[in-house]
Amino acid sequence: MEQYNVCFLGFGNVGRAVARLLAAKSSELRDLYGVEYRITGVASRRIGWLAKSEGTNEARGLDVSSLLDGSASPNDSSSANGISDWLQLAQPDAVFETTSLNPESGQPAINYLRAVMQSGAHAITANKGVLVHGYRELNELAQSVGKRFLFEASVLDSAPVFSLFRECLPAVKLRGFSGVFSSTTNVILETMEAGRSFEDGLKAAQELGVTETDPGHDIDGLDATVKVCALANVLMNLSLKPEDVTREGIRELGSSRVQAARTQGKPFKLIARARLGGKGKLAASVRPEQLAPSDPLANVRGTSLAVHFELDMMPGLTITSHRPNLQSTAYGLLADFINAVRSNDRRN
Amino acid sequence: MEQYNVCFLGFGNVGRAVARLLAAKSSELRDLYGVEYRITGVASRRIGWLAKSEGTNEARGLDVSSLLDGSASPNDSSSANGISDWLQLAQPDAVFETTSLNPESGQPAINYLRAVMQSGAHAITANKGVLVHGYRELNELAQSVGKRFLFEASVLDSAPVFSLFRECLPAVKLRGFSGVFSSTTNVILETMEAGRSFEDGLKAAQELGVTETDPGHDIDGLDATVKVCALANVLMNLSLKPEDVTREGIRELGSSRVQAARTQGKPFKLIARARLGGKGKLAASVRPEQLAPSDPLANVRGTSLAVHFELDMMPGLTITSHRPNLQSTAYGLLADFINAVRSNDRRN
Repeated sequence: MEQYNVCFLGFGNVGRAVARLLAAKSSELRDLYGVEYRITGVASRRIGWLAKSEGTNEARGLDVSSLLDGSASPNDSSSANGISDWLQLAQPDAVFETTSLNPESGQPAINYLRAVMQSGAHAITANKGVLVHGYRELNELAQSVGKRFLFEASVLDSAPVFSLFRECLPAVKLRGFSGVFSSTTNVILETMEAGRSFEDGLKAAQELGVTETDPGHDIDGLDATVKVCALANVLMNLSLKPEDVTREGIRELGSSRVQAARTQGKPFKLIARARLGGKGKLAASVRPEQLAPSDPLANVRGTSLAVHFELDMMPGLTITSHRPNLQSTAYGLLADFINAVRSNDRRN
Repeated sequence: MEQYNVCFLGFGNVGRAVARLLAAKSSELRDLYGVEYRITGVASRRIGWLAKSEGTNEARGLDVSSLLDGSASPNDSSSANGISDWLQLAQPDAVFETTSLNPESGQPAINYLRAVMQSGAHAITANKGVLVHGYRELNELAQSVGKRFLFEASVLDSAPVFSLFRECLPAVKLRGFSGVFSSTTNVILETMEAGRSFEDGLKAAQELGVTETDPGHDIDGLDATVKVCALANVLMNLSLKPEDVTREGIRELGSSRVQAARTQGKPFKLIARARLGGKGKLAASVRPEQLAPSDPLANVRGTSLAVHFELDMMPGLTITSHRPNLQSTAYGLLADFINAVRSNDRRN
């Protein structure tokens, strides 16, 4: 049995869902993977840099139940002075990083993840921004310090994408991909198809809890654009930036066009697309497209997400995640944690 | 750089496609995984038990080009006397087993795979029959001898299913699944929808090269039933046998019902389905079902295959393999080979 110190950098909806899921799956962690954990640090803008007080409550780490309630800080914690001090106090083996997205720079998440791995901990993030602006550096750092840098939840929530290529699809060449990466735009467009307004659609998406903090990121396709860059950079070894992606959101579509497209049987969706051209150059776009019923993404509706891959070894492979919820996203981070810590000799 | 002896047990379409793919991907094997290989044995009903003659052609192993042409045996081979003698002569590190399916017993493949692992080689098979009748035994043997027993190509060709659960979905609980596991029945039903006969559809499927040797296995749902058992036994740790699955093929449907269903927008497909009930009992069936357009499997047409999983951690995860070809199937076996031999320390 191995005991792991885990910490949370960011403790919003996703971070808290991971903490709950760790507790819910603790017997599987122990029985299947020989893993026990304690939470030794929690940091967020609201909470500050909490870490386990040295010497007290050694066996359990922090009692985060009061934080999960969204109320007070645990009694047994001390407050650290920024990331370095916090890592020093909390001594993590793995850190769940779920701070908010900065699509322009990936910061401060990149600096945090660098510090996490330099302190000797595995870095697990849900932050797609770091894959646009810091993937190569962080991946090289992980290799040089012998830790894992994992980010399964960053593009398709719990649905395996990065681990799929890493573990299940060795020696394939990815030629291109297309995807429905935004629940918000799906919900808005379907609301408009039903004869209601763009604003009604946005409200419906917000009520479902699927929009980004700034819903403009979804509506104008920036969120999907960052995901295109993340996939291209990790899976195709490129250095794609948001400005390299042709981008058009759904603001200008208008209800009558949206309804007419549905009547034709070729409804609009916000489609992300990337394809290697003849000279190894990637053509990438995020824009509303009318999909034929035979398109692999045609059936992706509501809050479901999907990605379709074109590979040298198979004409098409589609991964569809139906109506993922907050727990699904948290599971993407939990799976990364298990993959980081389970011993390599458990194979077969 | 590691040098591996690989052997083929069964050398029909799939085995030969694996041999061609190994050659086509040899530089990736070398550059990405530090793996070199030589073919030291090929056995089939037609060819007999060929192995590398001791002492000759040490560096290359067998020259299989004449076998790939489907013509003569290589000059430098000796003929062994059954499996034990063959394994002794060929000294494999990994064996690709692609002998034909026996849905009733899984034999002789189970005996072969046992001998392969007992001789110290990894066992890689495309044979779903062995997962019905020998999974537990062969898996335990693999663990006790420290070799891998892998079978990714057996259910959904190249699309990752078994490695997906093993590597990407730790600590999930599978509650049930549904699938389109037969190209042949898809093609027959779509031909009938277009107003042509059952026999025309069967002919079309045979021309596409997607039918089993005995097309009755597809048409009567036996092939799909074996796949249901394979998935349930490996992914849900059950001991399901074909007789435990409610089975109904597509022979009795009749063109008018098939056409009427399509006109309704709810076409028939041969759907495999399994679901855990309240008392941990699995209800499993293979039968023609009319799918609503919103069903995750509704869009799976022609020679495409798909499986939809219901998991505790996500409401639904669908894997769709679009129009897989012979190379795709071969890739499933190649991926197993790479996963068997790549060193565990390559991670991240």
